[in-house]
Amino acid sequence: MTGKTIPDIIVSRLPLYLRSLQRMDEENRKVTSSQELGERLGISAAQIRKDLSQFGEFGKQGTGYNINFLIEQLCRILHVDQEWDVAVIGAGDIGNAVARYKGFKNRGFRVVMIFDDDPDKIGTQIGEFTVSDANDLTESIRNAQIQVAMIAVPGSNAQNVADRLVEGGIKAILNYAPINLNVPEDVNVQYIDPSIHLQRMTYYLE
Amino acid sequence: MTGKTIPDIIVSRLPLYLRSLQRMDEENRKVTSSQELGERLGISAAQIRKDLSQFGEFGKQGTGYNINFLIEQLCRILHVDQEWDVAVIGAGDIGNAVARYKGFKNRGFRVVMIFDDDPDKIGTQIGEFTVSDANDLTESIRNAQIQVAMIAVPGSNAQNVADRLVEGGIKAILNYAPINLNVPEDVNVQYIDPSIHLQRMTYYLE
Repeated sequence: MTGKTIPDIIVSRLPLYLRSLQRMDEENRKVTSSQELGERLGISAAQIRKDLSQFGEFGKQGTGYNINFLIEQLCRILHVDQEWDVAVIGAGDIGNAVARYKGFKNRGFRVVMIFDDDPDKIGTQIGEFTVSDANDLTESIRNAQIQVAMIAVPGSNAQNVADRLVEGGIKAILNYAPINLNVPEDVNVQYIDPSIHLQRMTYYLE
Repeated sequence: MTGKTIPDIIVSRLPLYLRSLQRMDEENRKVTSSQELGERLGISAAQIRKDLSQFGEFGKQGTGYNINFLIEQLCRILHVDQEWDVAVIGAGDIGNAVARYKGFKNRGFRVVMIFDDDPDKIGTQIGEFTVSDANDLTESIRNAQIQVAMIAVPGSNAQNVADRLVEGGIKAILNYAPINLNVPEDVNVQYIDPSIHLQRMTYYLE
Protein backbone atom coordinates (compact mmCIF):
# COMPACT_ATOMS: atom_id res chain seq x y z
CA MET A 1 0.00 0.00 0.00
CA THR A 2 1.34 3.41 -0.94
CA GLY A 3 -0.03 6.50 0.73
CA LYS A 4 -2.07 7.49 -2.34
CA THR A 5 -5.73 6.47 -2.38
CA ILE A 6 -6.97 5.54 -5.82
CA PRO A 7 -10.66 6.36 -6.45
CA ASP A 8 -12.82 3.22 -6.51
CA ILE A 9 -14.20 4.17 -9.93
CA ILE A 10 -10.69 3.74 -11.35
CA VAL A 11 -10.18 0.46 -9.49
CA SER A 12 -13.47 -0.76 -10.95
CA ARG A 13 -12.14 -0.38 -14.51
CA LEU A 14 -8.85 -2.24 -13.99
CA PRO A 15 -10.44 -5.74 -14.10
CA LEU A 16 -11.99 -4.82 -17.46
CA TYR A 17 -8.61 -3.77 -18.83
CA LEU A 18 -7.08 -6.99 -17.50
CA ARG A 19 -9.80 -9.15 -19.07
CA SER A 20 -9.37 -7.52 -22.49
CA LEU A 21 -5.60 -7.85 -22.31
CA GLN A 22 -5.84 -11.53 -21.34
CA ARG A 23 -8.12 -12.06 -24.30
CA MET A 24 -5.60 -10.38 -26.60
CA ASP A 25 -2.90 -12.59 -25.10
CA GLU A 26 -5.00 -15.66 -25.93
CA GLU A 27 -5.13 -14.33 -29.49
CA ASN A 28 -1.30 -14.35 -29.38
CA ARG A 29 -1.12 -10.58 -29.57
CA LYS A 30 2.00 -8.91 -28.13
CA VAL A 31 1.34 -5.16 -28.20
CA THR A 32 -1.74 -2.96 -27.90
CA SER A 33 -2.67 0.69 -27.53
CA SER A 34 -5.02 2.68 -25.35
CA GLN A 35 -6.99 3.34 -28.56
CA GLU A 36 -7.53 -0.36 -29.25
CA LEU A 37 -8.33 -1.17 -25.63
CA GLY A 38 -10.74 1.73 -25.60
CA GLU A 39 -12.55 0.55 -28.70
CA ARG A 40 -12.93 -2.95 -27.27
CA LEU A 41 -14.31 -1.58 -24.01
CA GLY A 42 -16.23 1.49 -25.06
CA ILE A 43 -13.98 3.65 -22.85
CA SER A 44 -11.99 6.59 -24.19
CA ALA A 45 -8.27 6.09 -24.83
CA ALA A 46 -7.54 9.17 -22.73
CA GLN A 47 -9.42 7.68 -19.77
CA ILE A 48 -7.47 4.43 -20.03
CA ARG A 49 -4.13 6.25 -20.17
CA LYS A 50 -5.13 8.40 -17.19
CA ASP A 51 -6.31 5.39 -15.17
CA LEU A 52 -3.13 3.40 -15.82
CA SER A 53 -0.88 6.39 -15.12
CA GLN A 54 -2.12 6.33 -11.52
CA PHE A 55 -0.10 3.17 -11.01
CA GLY A 56 3.06 3.86 -12.99
CA GLU A 57 4.47 4.19 -16.48
CA PHE A 58 3.34 1.11 -18.40
CA GLY A 59 3.66 2.14 -22.03
CA LYS A 60 5.53 4.53 -24.27
CA GLN A 61 3.99 7.20 -26.46
CA GLY A 62 4.01 5.77 -29.97
CA THR A 63 4.93 2.19 -29.15
CA GLY A 64 1.90 1.25 -27.05
CA TYR A 65 1.66 -1.31 -24.26
CA ASN A 66 3.43 -4.65 -24.03
CA ILE A 67 0.44 -6.92 -23.35
CA ASN A 68 2.24 -9.49 -21.20
CA PHE A 69 3.89 -6.84 -19.08
CA LEU A 70 0.66 -4.94 -18.55
CA ILE A 71 -1.18 -8.16 -17.61
CA GLU A 72 1.52 -8.88 -15.01
CA GLN A 73 1.29 -5.38 -13.60
CA LEU A 74 -2.50 -5.37 -13.41
CA CYS A 75 -2.52 -8.82 -11.76
CA ARG A 76 -0.08 -7.48 -9.17
CA ILE A 77 -2.12 -4.30 -8.58
CA LEU A 78 -5.39 -6.26 -8.24
CA HIS A 79 -3.68 -8.90 -6.09
CA VAL A 80 -4.58 -11.69 -8.47
CA ASP A 81 -0.96 -12.66 -9.06
CA GLN A 82 -2.02 -15.34 -6.56
CA GLU A 83 -5.09 -17.59 -6.38
CA TRP A 84 -7.67 -16.75 -3.71
CA ASP A 85 -9.59 -19.58 -2.10
CA VAL A 86 -13.33 -18.92 -2.29
CA ALA A 87 -16.19 -20.34 -0.22
CA VAL A 88 -19.65 -20.64 -1.79
CA ILE A 89 -22.67 -20.50 0.49
CA GLY A 90 -25.83 -22.04 -0.94
CA ALA A 91 -25.99 -25.15 -3.09
CA GLY A 92 -29.06 -24.24 -5.15
CA ASP A 93 -29.00 -23.52 -8.88
CA ILE A 94 -26.79 -20.44 -8.59
CA GLY A 95 -24.44 -21.97 -6.01
CA ASN A 96 -24.14 -24.99 -8.28
CA ALA A 97 -23.35 -22.85 -11.30
CA VAL A 98 -20.69 -20.74 -9.56
CA ALA A 99 -19.08 -23.75 -7.84
CA ARG A 100 -18.68 -25.48 -11.20
CA TYR A 101 -17.88 -22.29 -13.12
CA LYS A 102 -14.80 -22.67 -15.32
CA GLY A 103 -14.36 -18.92 -15.73
CA PHE A 104 -12.39 -18.36 -12.52
CA LYS A 105 -9.39 -20.16 -13.96
CA ASN A 106 -6.46 -17.79 -14.58
CA ARG A 107 -8.46 -14.95 -13.07
CA GLY A 108 -7.22 -15.37 -9.51
CA PHE A 109 -9.93 -17.47 -7.84
CA ARG A 110 -10.55 -21.07 -6.91
CA VAL A 111 -13.71 -22.33 -5.23
CA VAL A 112 -12.66 -24.65 -2.40
CA MET A 113 -15.82 -25.16 -0.31
CA ILE A 114 -19.58 -25.09 -0.70
CA PHE A 115 -22.08 -24.97 2.16
CA ASP A 116 -25.82 -25.43 2.53
CA ASP A 117 -28.18 -25.81 5.48
CA ASP A 118 -30.53 -28.28 3.74
CA PRO A 119 -30.01 -31.78 5.19
CA ASP A 120 -30.90 -33.21 1.76
CA LYS A 121 -28.00 -31.33 0.17
CA ILE A 122 -25.34 -31.68 2.88
CA GLY A 123 -22.97 -34.50 1.92
CA THR A 124 -23.99 -34.53 -1.75
CA GLN A 125 -21.48 -33.95 -4.52
CA ILE A 126 -21.31 -30.81 -6.72
CA GLY A 127 -18.60 -31.25 -9.30
CA GLU A 128 -15.51 -32.01 -7.21
CA PHE A 129 -17.01 -30.68 -3.95
CA THR A 130 -18.96 -32.28 -1.16
CA VAL A 131 -21.58 -29.91 0.23
CA SER A 132 -20.71 -29.01 3.84
CA ASP A 133 -23.08 -28.21 6.69
CA ALA A 134 -23.67 -24.46 6.89
CA ASN A 135 -23.66 -24.79 10.68
CA ASP A 136 -19.88 -25.22 10.43
CA LEU A 137 -19.48 -22.15 8.21
CA THR A 138 -17.74 -19.74 10.57
CA GLU A 139 -15.34 -22.29 11.96
CA SER A 140 -14.44 -23.87 8.60
CA ILE A 141 -13.70 -20.52 7.04
CA ARG A 142 -11.66 -19.36 9.99
CA ASN A 143 -9.63 -22.58 10.03
CA ALA A 144 -8.96 -22.41 6.30
CA GLN A 145 -8.21 -18.65 6.57
CA ILE A 146 -10.50 -17.92 3.65
CA GLN A 147 -11.12 -14.23 2.93
CA VAL A 148 -13.39 -14.39 -0.11
CA ALA A 149 -16.94 -15.79 -0.25
CA MET A 150 -19.94 -15.86 -2.57
CA ILE A 151 -23.45 -15.84 -1.10
CA ALA A 152 -26.05 -17.73 -3.15
CA VAL A 153 -28.81 -18.22 -0.59
CA PRO A 154 -32.35 -16.74 -0.57
CA GLY A 155 -32.58 -13.06 0.36
CA SER A 156 -34.27 -13.87 3.65
CA ASN A 157 -31.18 -15.75 4.86
CA ALA A 158 -28.40 -13.68 3.27
CA GLN A 159 -27.76 -11.19 6.11
CA ASN A 160 -27.48 -14.02 8.61
CA VAL A 161 -24.99 -15.83 6.38
CA ALA A 162 -23.04 -12.59 5.86
CA ASP A 163 -22.79 -12.06 9.62
CA ARG A 164 -21.35 -15.55 10.08
CA LEU A 165 -18.93 -15.08 7.19
CA VAL A 166 -17.66 -11.83 8.70
CA GLU A 167 -17.27 -13.57 12.06
CA GLY A 168 -15.13 -16.19 10.32
CA GLY A 169 -12.84 -13.56 8.85
CA ILE A 170 -14.25 -13.02 5.35
CA LYS A 171 -13.21 -9.65 3.88
CA ALA A 172 -14.79 -9.81 0.40
CA ILE A 173 -18.33 -10.98 -0.38
CA LEU A 174 -19.90 -11.42 -3.78
CA ASN A 175 -23.62 -11.44 -3.02
CA TYR A 176 -26.07 -13.09 -5.43
CA ALA A 177 -28.98 -12.66 -3.02
CA PRO A 178 -31.25 -9.73 -3.97
CA ILE A 179 -30.73 -7.70 -0.81
CA ASN A 180 -28.27 -5.12 0.44
CA LEU A 181 -25.98 -6.44 3.17
CA ASN A 182 -24.84 -4.61 6.27
CA VAL A 183 -21.21 -5.43 6.99
CA PRO A 184 -18.34 -3.74 8.87
CA GLU A 185 -16.37 -1.09 7.01
CA ASP A 186 -13.36 -3.31 6.40
CA VAL A 187 -15.49 -5.86 4.49
CA ASN A 188 -16.17 -5.29 0.80
CA VAL A 189 -19.40 -6.41 -0.85
CA GLN A 190 -20.20 -6.61 -4.54
CA TYR A 191 -23.64 -7.48 -5.86
CA ILE A 192 -24.91 -9.57 -8.75
CA ASP A 193 -28.66 -9.26 -9.30
CA PRO A 194 -29.79 -9.84 -12.89
CA SER A 195 -33.09 -7.99 -12.32
CA ILE A 196 -31.17 -4.85 -11.38
CA HIS A 197 -29.10 -5.04 -14.57
CA LEU A 198 -32.19 -5.71 -16.70
CA GLN A 199 -34.12 -2.80 -15.17
CA ARG A 200 -31.23 -0.46 -15.98
CA MET A 201 -31.84 -1.37 -19.62
CA THR A 202 -35.65 -1.45 -19.80
CA TYR A 203 -35.55 2.21 -18.74
CA TYR A 204 -34.31 2.86 -22.29
CA LEU A 205 -36.87 0.60 -24.01
CA GLU A 206 -40.24 1.79 -25.22
CA MET B 1 -39.99 10.23 -23.14
CA THR B 2 -39.61 13.84 -22.08
CA GLY B 3 -36.94 15.99 -23.68
CA LYS B 4 -34.70 15.80 -20.63
CA THR B 5 -31.91 13.24 -20.70
CA ILE B 6 -31.25 11.68 -17.30
CA PRO B 7 -27.61 10.70 -16.68
CA ASP B 8 -27.12 6.92 -16.78
CA ILE B 9 -25.50 6.98 -13.34
CA ILE B 10 -28.83 8.14 -11.90
CA VAL B 11 -30.77 5.55 -13.89
CA SER B 12 -28.42 2.90 -12.53
CA ARG B 13 -29.45 3.68 -8.94
CA LEU B 14 -33.22 3.56 -9.51
CA PRO B 15 -33.43 -0.27 -9.56
CA LEU B 16 -31.66 -0.32 -6.17
CA TYR B 17 -34.20 2.10 -4.73
CA LEU B 18 -37.01 0.01 -6.18
CA ARG B 19 -35.62 -3.23 -4.74
CA SER B 20 -35.27 -1.73 -1.26
CA LEU B 21 -38.78 -0.29 -1.40
CA GLN B 22 -40.23 -3.62 -2.53
CA ARG B 23 -38.47 -5.26 0.38
CA MET B 24 -39.98 -2.71 2.79
CA ASP B 25 -43.38 -3.37 1.23
CA GLU B 26 -42.92 -7.11 1.89
CA GLU B 27 -42.23 -6.13 5.50
CA ASN B 28 -45.64 -4.37 5.42
CA ARG B 29 -44.07 -0.97 5.78
CA LYS B 30 -46.06 2.01 4.46
CA VAL B 31 -43.78 5.04 4.68
CA THR B 32 -40.02 5.57 4.45
CA SER B 33 -37.53 8.42 4.21
CA SER B 34 -34.50 9.19 2.10
CA GLN B 35 -32.49 8.75 5.31
CA GLU B 36 -33.71 5.19 5.83
CA LEU B 37 -33.32 4.24 2.18
CA GLY B 38 -29.84 5.72 2.24
CA GLU B 39 -28.83 3.71 5.28
CA ARG B 40 -30.07 0.50 3.69
CA LEU B 41 -28.18 1.21 0.49
CA GLY B 42 -25.07 3.03 1.64
CA ILE B 43 -26.06 6.05 -0.44
CA SER B 44 -26.50 9.55 1.04
CA ALA B 45 -30.04 10.76 1.70
CA ALA B 46 -29.25 13.92 -0.28
CA GLN B 47 -28.24 11.86 -3.30
CA ILE B 48 -31.46 9.87 -3.16
CA ARG B 49 -33.61 13.01 -2.90
CA LYS B 50 -31.70 14.59 -5.79
CA ASP B 51 -32.02 11.46 -7.96
CA LEU B 52 -35.76 11.12 -7.38
CA SER B 53 -36.38 14.83 -7.91
CA GLN B 54 -35.26 14.36 -11.54
CA PHE B 55 -38.51 12.50 -12.15
CA GLY B 56 -41.03 14.49 -10.13
CA GLU B 57 -42.16 15.25 -6.61
CA PHE B 58 -42.60 11.93 -4.82
CA GLY B 59 -42.45 12.85 -1.15
CA LYS B 60 -43.04 15.73 1.19
CA GLN B 61 -40.46 17.28 3.49
CA GLY B 62 -41.16 15.89 6.94
CA THR B 63 -43.64 13.16 5.96
CA GLY B 64 -41.35 11.04 3.81
CA TYR B 65 -42.25 8.78 0.91
CA ASN B 66 -45.36 6.62 0.55
CA ILE B 67 -43.74 3.27 -0.25
CA ASN B 68 -46.49 1.90 -2.49
CA PHE B 69 -46.73 5.09 -4.48
CA LEU B 70 -42.97 5.34 -4.97
CA ILE B 71 -42.81 1.67 -6.05
CA GLU B 72 -45.50 2.37 -8.65
CA GLN B 73 -43.69 5.44 -9.92
CA LEU B 74 -40.30 3.71 -10.15
CA CYS B 75 -41.86 0.72 -11.94
CA ARG B 76 -43.38 3.13 -14.44
CA ILE B 77 -40.12 5.05 -14.92
CA LEU B 78 -38.09 1.83 -15.38
CA HIS B 79 -40.80 0.35 -17.63
CA VAL B 80 -41.30 -2.65 -15.37
CA ASP B 81 -44.98 -1.87 -14.79
CA GLN B 82 -45.24 -4.62 -17.41
CA GLU B 83 -43.54 -8.02 -17.73
CA TRP B 84 -40.83 -8.34 -20.38
CA ASP B 85 -40.40 -11.67 -22.13
CA VAL B 86 -36.78 -12.80 -21.96
CA ALA B 87 -34.86 -15.27 -24.12
CA VAL B 88 -31.93 -17.19 -22.60
CA ILE B 89 -29.16 -18.36 -24.91
CA GLY B 90 -27.06 -21.23 -23.59
CA ALA B 91 -28.38 -24.17 -21.56
CA GLY B 92 -25.24 -24.84 -19.52
CA ASP B 93 -24.99 -24.34 -15.76
CA ILE B 94 -25.55 -20.59 -15.89
CA GLY B 95 -28.33 -20.74 -18.50
CA ASN B 96 -30.01 -23.38 -16.38
CA ALA B 97 -29.76 -21.26 -13.25
CA VAL B 98 -31.14 -18.10 -14.87
CA ALA B 99 -33.92 -19.96 -16.70
CA ARG B 100 -35.11 -21.46 -13.41
CA TYR B 101 -34.37 -18.32 -11.34
CA LYS B 102 -37.30 -17.36 -9.13
CA GLY B 103 -36.00 -13.83 -8.55
CA PHE B 104 -37.46 -12.30 -11.73
CA LYS B 105 -40.96 -12.59 -10.32
CA ASN B 106 -42.48 -9.17 -9.55
CA ARG B 107 -39.40 -7.49 -10.98
CA GLY B 108 -40.64 -7.16 -14.53
CA PHE B 109 -39.20 -10.19 -16.31
CA ARG B 110 -40.26 -13.64 -17.41
CA VAL B 111 -38.04 -16.14 -19.18
CA VAL B 112 -39.99 -17.59 -22.10
CA MET B 113 -37.40 -19.40 -24.24
CA ILE B 114 -34.03 -21.07 -23.90
CA PHE B 115 -31.71 -21.98 -26.77
CA ASP B 116 -28.60 -24.09 -27.21
CA ASP B 117 -26.62 -25.37 -30.19
CA ASP B 118 -25.70 -28.71 -28.58
CA PRO B 119 -27.76 -31.52 -30.17
CA ASP B 120 -27.65 -33.35 -26.81
CA LYS B 121 -29.38 -30.42 -25.12
CA ILE B 122 -31.89 -29.40 -27.80
CA GLY B 123 -35.29 -30.85 -26.93
CA THR B 124 -34.43 -31.51 -23.29
CA GLN B 125 -36.41 -29.97 -20.47
CA ILE B 126 -35.17 -27.19 -18.14
CA GLY B 127 -37.82 -26.45 -15.55
CA GLU B 128 -40.88 -25.61 -17.65
CA PHE B 129 -38.91 -24.98 -20.85
CA THR B 130 -37.87 -27.18 -23.73
CA VAL B 131 -34.44 -26.22 -25.05
CA SER B 132 -34.75 -24.86 -28.60
CA ASP B 133 -32.25 -25.13 -31.43
CA ALA B 134 -30.01 -22.05 -31.49
CA ASN B 135 -30.15 -22.18 -35.29
CA ASP B 136 -33.71 -20.84 -35.03
CA LEU B 137 -32.66 -18.04 -32.67
CA THR B 138 -33.10 -15.00 -34.88
CA GLU B 139 -36.39 -16.10 -36.36
CA SER B 140 -37.94 -17.23 -33.07
CA ILE B 141 -37.06 -13.99 -31.35
CA ARG B 142 -38.34 -11.89 -34.24
CA ASN B 143 -41.61 -13.83 -34.39
CA ALA B 144 -42.17 -13.52 -30.65
CA GLN B 145 -41.12 -9.83 -30.73
CA ILE B 146 -38.77 -10.36 -27.82
CA GLN B 147 -36.54 -7.40 -26.96
CA VAL B 148 -34.61 -8.71 -23.94
CA ALA B 149 -32.09 -11.58 -23.90
CA MET B 150 -29.50 -13.11 -21.63
CA ILE B 151 -26.35 -14.64 -23.11
CA ALA B 152 -24.92 -17.60 -21.20
CA VAL B 153 -22.66 -19.19 -23.79
CA PRO B 154 -18.84 -19.50 -23.80
CA GLY B 155 -16.94 -16.30 -24.57
CA SER B 156 -15.77 -17.66 -27.91
CA ASN B 157 -19.36 -17.86 -29.16
CA ALA B 158 -20.91 -14.81 -27.47
CA GLN B 159 -20.31 -12.19 -30.17
CA ASN B 160 -21.83 -14.45 -32.80
CA VAL B 161 -24.89 -15.01 -30.61
CA ALA B 162 -25.15 -11.27 -29.94
CA ASP B 163 -25.09 -10.52 -33.67
CA ARG B 164 -27.96 -12.93 -34.27
CA LEU B 165 -29.94 -11.53 -31.34
CA VAL B 166 -29.56 -8.01 -32.69
CA GLU B 167 -30.67 -9.24 -36.13
CA GLY B 168 -33.79 -10.66 -34.46
CA GLY B 169 -34.63 -7.32 -32.86
CA ILE B 170 -33.16 -7.65 -29.35
CA LYS B 171 -32.56 -4.25 -27.72
CA ALA B 172 -31.27 -5.25 -24.28
CA ILE B 173 -28.68 -7.96 -23.59
CA LEU B 174 -27.50 -9.21 -20.22
CA ASN B 175 -24.20 -10.89 -21.02
CA TYR B 176 -22.80 -13.58 -18.71
CA ALA B 177 -19.98 -14.44 -21.14
CA PRO B 178 -16.65 -12.91 -20.09
CA ILE B 179 -16.14 -10.74 -23.16
CA ASN B 180 -17.15 -7.26 -24.27
CA LEU B 181 -19.75 -7.27 -27.02
CA ASN B 182 -19.89 -4.98 -30.03
CA VAL B 183 -23.49 -4.02 -30.74
CA PRO B 184 -25.24 -1.13 -32.51
CA GLU B 185 -25.80 2.06 -30.52
CA ASP B 186 -29.51 1.42 -29.98
CA VAL B 187 -28.80 -1.89 -28.21
CA ASN B 188 -27.97 -1.86 -24.49
CA VAL B 189 -25.64 -4.40 -22.94
CA GLN B 190 -25.04 -5.10 -19.27
CA TYR B 191 -22.40 -7.50 -18.03
CA ILE B 192 -22.23 -10.06 -15.25
CA ASP B 193 -18.78 -11.52 -14.72
CA PRO B 194 -18.09 -12.71 -11.17
CA SER B 195 -14.31 -12.56 -11.68
CA ILE B 196 -14.56 -8.84 -12.46
CA HIS B 197 -16.52 -8.21 -9.26
CA LEU B 198 -14.11 -10.30 -7.20
CA GLN B 199 -11.05 -8.54 -8.61
CA ARG B 200 -12.54 -5.18 -7.67
CA MET B 201 -12.46 -6.42 -4.09
CA THR B 202 -9.11 -8.23 -3.96
CA TYR B 203 -7.51 -4.90 -4.85
CA TYR B 204 -8.36 -3.91 -1.27
CA LEU B 205 -7.13 -7.15 0.34
CA GLU B 206 -3.59 -7.69 1.59
